[in-house]
Amino acid sequence: MKNIFLKHPTKPVKVASKDLAELLEEMRYVGFQGRKLGELTEAWVSMLQEDKIVIFMGLAGAMVPAGMRRVISYLIRKRMIDVLVSTGANLYHDCHEALGRKHYLGTPNVNDVILRKHYVDRIYDIFANEKGFYKTDLWIQNEFAQSLEDGYPYSSREILHLLGKKLSERKTAKNSILVSAYRADVPIFCPAINDSSLGFSIMFANRKPSVAKLRKGKAQKRIIIDCLKDVDEISKICEKARVTAGIYIGGGVPKNYIQQAAVIASYQTRHNRSHNYGLQITMDSPQWGGLSGCTLEESQSWGKYDANAKIVTCYCDATIALPIVAHALMEKAERIAERRKKPSFRWEKDSFKLKFV
Amino acid sequence: MKNIFLKHPTKPVKVASKDLAELLEEMRYVGFQGRKLGELTEAWVSMLQEDKIVIFMGLAGAMVPAGMRRVISYLIRKRMIDVLVSTGANLYHDCHEALGRKHYLGTPNVNDVILRKHYVDRIYDIFANEKGFYKTDLWIQNEFAQSLEDGYPYSSREILHLLGKKLSERKTAKNSILVSAYRADVPIFCPAINDSSLGFSIMFANRKPSVAKLRKGKAQKRIIIDCLKDVDEISKICEKARVTAGIYIGGGVPKNYIQQAAVIASYQTRHNRSHNYGLQITMDSPQWGGLSGCTLEESQSWGKYDANAKIVTCYCDATIALPIVAHALMEKAERIAERRKKPSFRWEKDSFKLKFV
Amino acid sequence: MKNIFLKHPTKPVKVASKDLAELLEEMRYVGFQGRKLGELTEAWVSMLQEDKIVIFMGLAGAMVPAGMRRVISYLIRKRMIDVLVSTGANLYHDCHEALGRKHYLGTPNVNDVILRKHYVDRIYDIFANEKGFYKTDLWIQNEFAQSLEDGYPYSSREILHLLGKKLSERKTAKNSILVSAYRADVPIFCPAINDSSLGFSIMFANRKPSVAKLRKGKAQKRIIIDCLKDVDEISKICEKARVTAGIYIGGGVPKNYIQQAAVIASYQTRHNRSHNYGLQITMDSPQWGGLSGCTLEESQSWGKYDANAKIVTCYCDATIALPIVAHALMEKAERIAERRKKPSFRWEKDSFKLKFV
Amino acid sequence: MKNIFLKHPTKPVKVASKDLAELLEEMRYVGFQGRKLGELTEAWVSMLQEDKIVIFMGLAGAMVPAGMRRVISYLIRKRMIDVLVSTGANLYHDCHEALGRKHYLGTPNVNDVILRKHYVDRIYDIFANEKGFYKTDLWIQNEFAQSLEDGYPYSSREILHLLGKKLSERKTAKNSILVSAYRADVPIFCPAINDSSLGFSIMFANRKPSVAKLRKGKAQKRIIIDCLKDVDEISKICEKARVTAGIYIGGGVPKNYIQQAAVIASYQTRHNRSHNYGLQITMDSPQWGGLSGCTLEESQSWGKYDANAKIVTCYCDATIALPIVAHALMEKAERIAERRKKPSFRWEKDSFKLKFV
Repeated sequence: MKNIFLKHPTKPVKVASKDLAELLEEMRYVGFQGRKLGELTEAWVSMLQEDKIVIFMGLAGAMVPAGMRRVISYLIRKRMIDVLVSTGANLYHDCHEALGRKHYLGTPNVNDVILRKHYVDRIYDIFANEKGFYKTDLWIQNEFAQSLEDGYPYSSREILHLLGKKLSERKTAKNSILVSAYRADVPIFCPAINDSSLGFSIMFANRKPSVAKLRKGKAQKRIIIDCLKDVDEISKICEKARVTAGIYIGGGVPKNYIQQAAVIASYQTRHNRSHNYGLQITMDSPQWGGLSGCTLEESQSWGKYDANAKIVTCYCDATIALPIVAHALMEKAERIAERRKKPSFRWEKDSFKLKFV
Repeated sequence: MKNIFLKHPTKPVKVASKDLAELLEEMRYVGFQGRKLGELTEAWVSMLQEDKIVIFMGLAGAMVPAGMRRVISYLIRKRMIDVLVSTGANLYHDCHEALGRKHYLGTPNVNDVILRKHYVDRIYDIFANEKGFYKTDLWIQNEFAQSLEDGYPYSSREILHLLGKKLSERKTAKNSILVSAYRADVPIFCPAINDSSLGFSIMFANRKPSVAKLRKGKAQKRIIIDCLKDVDEISKICEKARVTAGIYIGGGVPKNYIQQAAVIASYQTRHNRSHNYGLQITMDSPQWGGLSGCTLEESQSWGKYDANAKIVTCYCDATIALPIVAHALMEKAERIAERRKKPSFRWEKDSFKLKFV
Repeated sequence: MKNIFLKHPTKPVKVASKDLAELLEEMRYVGFQGRKLGELTEAWVSMLQEDKIVIFMGLAGAMVPAGMRRVISYLIRKRMIDVLVSTGANLYHDCHEALGRKHYLGTPNVNDVILRKHYVDRIYDIFANEKGFYKTDLWIQNEFAQSLEDGYPYSSREILHLLGKKLSERKTAKNSILVSAYRADVPIFCPAINDSSLGFSIMFANRKPSVAKLRKGKAQKRIIIDCLKDVDEISKICEKARVTAGIYIGGGVPKNYIQQAAVIASYQTRHNRSHNYGLQITMDSPQWGGLSGCTLEESQSWGKYDANAKIVTCYCDATIALPIVAHALMEKAERIAERRKKPSFRWEKDSFKLKFV
Repeated sequence: MKNIFLKHPTKPVKVASKDLAELLEEMRYVGFQGRKLGELTEAWVSMLQEDKIVIFMGLAGAMVPAGMRRVISYLIRKRMIDVLVSTGANLYHDCHEALGRKHYLGTPNVNDVILRKHYVDRIYDIFANEKGFYKTDLWIQNEFAQSLEDGYPYSSREILHLLGKKLSERKTAKNSILVSAYRADVPIFCPAINDSSLGFSIMFANRKPSVAKLRKGKAQKRIIIDCLKDVDEISKICEKARVTAGIYIGGGVPKNYIQQAAVIASYQTRHNRSHNYGLQITMDSPQWGGLSGCTLEESQSWGKYDANAKIVTCYCDATIALPIVAHALMEKAERIAERRKKPSFRWEKDSFKLKFV
């Protein structure tokens, strides 16, 4: 008579020559977060094999300053994700690098008041040139924002599409998240775009009239980013799609926004539009009660994930987990991703179309 | 010859009859986070003694479901804070309770799929009635949103002012954050209002025409929340104020938004508008590189805090730290707060006025 | 028809005049770790009302350098705990202060290489004088260890009893943990006494013959601390006691040792000797799989706690939680503790006696 | 005029075909813990190239139940470490598997009271058969402990050497840590061996006379593990070695013990015997003030590491970091390790010899 809880022995990992994808497969048979990293990779591969799935990625934390830009850009180009929801900061820093500027290796063991005197801005162990940021701000304010329409209520998605397009003209921008997304027809949402240098630089364009406009005697224009339009748009994707996945790098607004879209879609359609997959890489923890650290199981109680959804949380710094998972996906799933039916999105006045091509 | 590093011996806390404010004062002479809780309380008292200061509070995490609503409401009523920047969820849950509904004591050790079947939504160890949430959503959509103007680009502050006003008519709302803030002339900003049931319920009002309007043959209206207007408004407070403080319960968008306002104000005025105080209660940690867990020292490198600012971070769950600090403030600083010069804010078409009264 | 999950509404804490014990009682009706702190205090009060209970406390982390010494000493003196299991470091630092030396207020934002040059040892934000430590080491080696018997296999409990006795002669020692425990008949176990300056200073006595002994032509003596004797002794308490509690400040060896004692006692007696109460204040987290952060529920699977045990984990820095809980116990439970039947322990050659007096 | 803080731009990781060692090399140029994982690997390779170095590894946390046994065994066999200091639990679970028993894949989302009824012991997401543990306990008590000498004060190192030898006779033991260490002349210390089933099972041999012995009319023997002997032994390694390294998987007693050995050695020799390398993989955090989470910089203030030591802390679950680093070492450093001068240790009555062979 077997013990029902003791069915599958662990398989301690043997150190031997193998590729990363194989190592991650083996790690599914150990314990703790190592197992979770293996399971998360496996679940990502599974979802790429789903017919007609829309894969959302939520991106929070200073991932671009920390050198994760080309990894995200790779995931977009190879269509391992279909929609990106990001904090404003990641997109601002992507824009900064797309304009040819850099982030620098630094250290947290430093006197920040001295850094201030040198106009060096610190992000944990990354340093940046504040004067360079100022140039990026001015480019957004003067070059980009001036091309926006007066009085038209933009969604963040529309703004970021135009920004990707604008940046795509620049040679320095080839590994840009914004440009890759523009080219791959991957929409980017930034629900709190106002909460970043990207947002406030556009706001400055409202305050400071461009010389050219004033010369022509035109009144100062008013750029509007309508955050309700945003939530309308993203939820429509969930309304139309039958199979959806959320992959979260960190928590924050991007995680909630993707999860909320499933709730809205279920309200609207009066059908179950819960996500079918949920993958989360985070360093927050459940016991503080916040959304960033809560389990994906908790979210099942809200109907954000289906009762049968495949959900995996891996508690790990994303600068470790993300490059490792991305390389394993490259080894194992690049061809699978190529064969996928990819969603194509079209927003027009009063309608939204989702096709799989 | 004295050792310069060994000047002030610790004073181990003696267990004896005393009030909470005294205990926190004593804790300034121990180590680790206990000391920080003591220092944080002391710094809060100090800032209440500043002439003409504007005190911002950032509120993230599920603080209202976790029973912190009356504490926040107290801080507003007694003007221990002057501006609130919050996640949408906290304001939505405040609205939910203001309408007479409840949150419930639960447990994290539960099967969430079973909760789903009973329409119970879980927030760590708090349960809530999904059907009750639905009623709150409908009230926002049908009662509140219908009173909003068509085509006018609202800031979140304007929306929340109107919501506080609307709720103030209800008897059940007396401990409400929104109502207390409305009555006390404390503006509330919610930079990512779209990222909450509050935001998406207003969005639904754009989708679903009210029967009454349609009967009158009117076209469906379009409510707009302009998130750029928001960032314009909050930064103007920092432009006008000479002394400012940021107090953060958790991190996320509220923390960044308050810090960013100082940066914008310095850009705009070409003077140093860095915050003069920074207090942070968080369970995130610096080594993951995110803004929520970063030290306030790091923020000094960006000029978000002055080189001479008084900054204290206490790593503690806010449901422990906040009630304790609030009670100590009551014991020690209620009179100090009464005597303060309180800021009064007026936004009109093209101008913003800040007065101390 | 009521929803079975929605029975007990939260009661948001109202800021009002009250004592600390009342505040903690109210916090039982909020969420997250605030609730846990309230529940933990309540459970401690409950156990003090149990007839014939033995209460173990596990003490890990640098609690004495961080100024928690008088709190622990209070808990011992008022018999709110009956047995202490500690890391060596806490007892060493207690000895250091008992000899009249100090720890100092410091900061983590400091160059440790410079501290080294000044012989300043850092424990996060506490500084200490290395030369003072050296004097304490020599006192242990020359004064204390010389009084120990040659070749007798001591348990750590015996050593620490003798150390408490020795220190009790000194005026500076009145708030000492070791002295309070000696006086109150509270045994202290230190399973890894070798892993501390206390242990290695005794070891040095084995290496370096005292001048006095050598003069008399005596051979160098050999002090033995038999760690098996230790585990034999502590488990006998659990074998004899019918009701037991474990309270853990941090995890590590002390937590495991107390839990393990219940397992050994069940093996030995072939009866259930699982602990009946478990209270844990920790900042470790379950998802890393270690014993320090695991839930007390997990320990129930091992039989370390009874299926009906009252168990509460509060995730909080102990320098915050411990003084607060101790003050609430003082307000609410000092009289209850006075009326308790307190265990009295007698170890003799081949027998162990436990009486309640 | 260059900014002195902005010298080395980050190099965002490009997803491309490469081996794991190359990926970790690239990760040295990103931010946060990803960089640290790269630096940690690099530092390990560097130390393997040092002439006459002794490399200590501290092992805490349930690494063996979590499937890390063959990784540790690999590091021992390839002499990427020279001395192991471990918690008792890891060695007990190694012994358990060496005797042919298993750990099982489980889940943390389970009712532990039900597990109890099925005699299933849980370690986060690992399950184990309590009845199997009982057999292992009896084997230690009856088979192994009976071979130990009466009245001889053993160090844990001596006990574990004999245990490795005993287990080496068994076919099931080939990937055992204890057996690999026995064969490779890698001493294992377990400072708190009493704090584990390994320790208490030996203690039980003191309590329960073996039938065979009693039949022969012999008195019950007394096995002694002298924990002072242990600390004497390990510190002698640091006294004799000129170059030393500490690598920590988790914190706890093993970390402190290895660091303390350097302090003792400096006291004894009156020369600087601080460690020259320190590598730490942990999920504890500095702000709680405990030794497990403190920075290695803090330890420099104590002289545990040299002012010029190469020190790297990577905050990551070891079940992720350890297999990844081990595979990178295999790819990059196996030959380097083969060519090393390896320390050989000989303890005899009153002397200790360290040779490099």
